[in-house]
Amino acid sequence: MKKFEEKTIKTTQIFDGKVVRLQVDDVQLPNGNTSKRELIKHPGAVAIIPITKDNKIVLVEQYRKPLEKSIIEIPAGKLEPGEDPEKTAVRELEEETGYTTKSISKVTSFYTSPGFADELMHIYLTDDLEKLENPPALDEDEFVEILEVTLEEAKQLVREQRIHDAKTNYAILYLEMQELR
Amino acid sequence: MKKFEEKTIKTTQIFDGKVVRLQVDDVQLPNGNTSKRELIKHPGAVAIIPITKDNKIVLVEQYRKPLEKSIIEIPAGKLEPGEDPEKTAVRELEEETGYTTKSISKVTSFYTSPGFADELMHIYLTDDLEKLENPPALDEDEFVEILEVTLEEAKQLVREQRIHDAKTNYAILYLEMQELR
Repeated sequence: MKKFEEKTIKTTQIFDGKVVRLQVDDVQLPNGNTSKRELIKHPGAVAIIPITKDNKIVLVEQYRKPLEKSIIEIPAGKLEPGEDPEKTAVRELEEETGYTTKSISKVTSFYTSPGFADELMHIYLTDDLEKLENPPALDEDEFVEILEVTLEEAKQLVREQRIHDAKTNYAILYLEMQELR
Repeated sequence: MKKFEEKTIKTTQIFDGKVVRLQVDDVQLPNGNTSKRELIKHPGAVAIIPITKDNKIVLVEQYRKPLEKSIIEIPAGKLEPGEDPEKTAVRELEEETGYTTKSISKVTSFYTSPGFADELMHIYLTDDLEKLENPPALDEDEFVEILEVTLEEAKQLVREQRIHDAKTNYAILYLEMQELR
């Protein structure tokens, strides 16, 4: 849908990094006036809700530099260019938790911050986990600690804001609803 | 919590815009090695789930330049420096929908993209709406269309990916769960 389309008059590239690109677009508004839009380009991301055979949720704690603190999240990672999101989800699961799975299902996808970024997040679920004997290594700048918690414990972590990000808050609400059904 | 803290060695400011700032930090990792982190600084945002007296959800359709398409969202907006998030939520409700409210409640808050941005999103709900006779104007570069839909219609919009962002997908799931309770 192109309602209220903002046509690009000029694009100014500001930054081309490892994770994000930043550009400023001069746009023509629907009323003919012009304005500027600051746009973050991101390759997209995947996350996976891993449920163990004894019905625990596998979470990872890691330091998030933008927040200057560590938070607890479902396993997630950036898409590599051209990579199938399902494959990325399994790869991140293996690297971050040491589990693998042969069967995942799609939960939802959403843009995380459509006002300024194009990051699209794909969320999967698996309840068919197997421990890997030789899990692949994390990226060399990644440090995570694994937690396995009940849904009640996860809800408490949300209340304490130790879980405090869009994909993980969504995941916990999703599991809560599955239980009510 | 500071587990796996990444200490800042150097900060390089790249861009200081109307909406976002971008910096690259050189950091010391927990194992002593160094790495770089690309960080978007954002003032934070609020969103509000407005429910009418006849149990419809008030949504707004607007063009999102980062996505190059229009999507349908709950009313939302950036925090002004020092502004109380509840006040911002009511202001955005008034500007975007022409409704006001005297009573809102907090639903949740979450970081939208903790891997690269510090944007914190506060979500509120109100089911006590009143039409304003003279609603305040939108920002001069904002163009929105208002929709009032049932929860079933909203769920269909999610399936069609016309609703397709973190805060609004979360909001619809939240309302779905309230109905199951």
